[in-house]
Amino acid sequence: MTQTLTLIMFSGELDKALAGFNIAIGASAVGIDTTIYFTFWGLNIIRKKGGLIKGKSIKQKLLNLMNRGGSDGLPLSRFNMFNLGPWMMKNIMKNSHMPTLRQMIALAKIQDVKFVACSSSLEMMGLKKDDLIEEVDEIAGVATYLNIASKSKINLFI
Amino acid sequence: MTQTLTLIMFSGELDKALAGFNIAIGASAVGIDTTIYFTFWGLNIIRKKGGLIKGKSIKQKLLNLMNRGGSDGLPLSRFNMFNLGPWMMKNIMKNSHMPTLRQMIALAKIQDVKFVACSSSLEMMGLKKDDLIEEVDEIAGVATYLNIASKSKINLFI
Amino acid sequence: MTQTLTLIMFSGELDKALAGFNIAIGASAVGIDTTIYFTFWGLNIIRKKGGLIKGKSIKQKLLNLMNRGGSDGLPLSRFNMFNLGPWMMKNIMKNSHMPTLRQMIALAKIQDVKFVACSSSLEMMGLKKDDLIEEVDEIAGVATYLNIASKSKINLFI
Repeated sequence: MTQTLTLIMFSGELDKALAGFNIAIGASAVGIDTTIYFTFWGLNIIRKKGGLIKGKSIKQKLLNLMNRGGSDGLPLSRFNMFNLGPWMMKNIMKNSHMPTLRQMIALAKIQDVKFVACSSSLEMMGLKKDDLIEEVDEIAGVATYLNIASKSKINLFI
Repeated sequence: MTQTLTLIMFSGELDKALAGFNIAIGASAVGIDTTIYFTFWGLNIIRKKGGLIKGKSIKQKLLNLMNRGGSDGLPLSRFNMFNLGPWMMKNIMKNSHMPTLRQMIALAKIQDVKFVACSSSLEMMGLKKDDLIEEVDEIAGVATYLNIASKSKINLFI
Repeated sequence: MTQTLTLIMFSGELDKALAGFNIAIGASAVGIDTTIYFTFWGLNIIRKKGGLIKGKSIKQKLLNLMNRGGSDGLPLSRFNMFNLGPWMMKNIMKNSHMPTLRQMIALAKIQDVKFVACSSSLEMMGLKKDDLIEEVDEIAGVATYLNIASKSKINLFI
């Protein structure tokens, strides 16, 4: 039986996204069937950069104004300091010849990591499939997540 | 064999609590035996609202003064901004006809999700069973958690 | 077959470290083969205290200046308040006769919990094996983690 790994990507911070993609890329590289289920702030990782402020209600628009998506603009979970932290981290990664998060997203797709976006989080934030990057395979609810996770040897919540 | 899912609810933030209860409710709805083990800040989710400041020592009292429990008063993990964030989130959820956290707690219990409170966290915070909502089934230590988790197909730390 | 438990220790906060070590010590006490894989901020838990500012590049030095290691100096994930929170928490733990994090690290080693440090996180932060406490068994990459985790009944990301 093929091994399976499923990550819930709840957090939208650069450091946690890097950790998640490191695990996903490592797993798919050794033949483990890997799925990332993006929910809540994790949707920021797979949102298209910039664009119009989305959402039907004023509160959704306000939330999306504060919470602009795009893998280039994620904060750090610590030492964020008005984006000095993420800038430093990206710089260190570049000097250590590590791939950027955007490159890791592309690499994960090449290795057939499946990207699933949480439907109820999308609805809550007033976002649609068009607001997400094209690498996303599917929009689905928690039942789909549970179905995949219950077949997975490794389940993580990040 | 019945499938089993066990969540450690370590965090006491509204967004993480919502994510946890979404998973627990979804799982129990499809017949998965589900347990939530509340520890550390996660105890705030199952604390009765308000009441006296608890704790024997001054430091426990101080901690509980800062850290008032009750599922209505939880902060967000991001964009908390003096409770503007949680207020906005609750408002968006209401407009999207999503259940509140309090409703999700009730729904989880109807679906037989088991609530276990971590005994050593309770002791550390100077809290007793009486300080917790009546939905809590059991107070138990890490050995009990490990016993349930070792039979679970899906284990998550939130 | 022996039960196995694997924790990814990503976070470097005192409260999350305590939760992780509580689980690891509890698990190893009942005969579960336990491994902690320290990555990213989690490396702070197993860094030697103080010493010179490490790192080859200026940005690595700056990161390590902000991010001094050592299990005695970890912040809290909430109520950090210029280290008042961690001081209070340690005080409460002491009064409740709970072991300190340093004592829990020692206890975990006595019970044969395996400590693995993430090689790419170390490299990114400009740290070497000498900068880590002697309890660390191995420095290894994500492939080693996946190999252990795929045999584990309980996998958690903290």
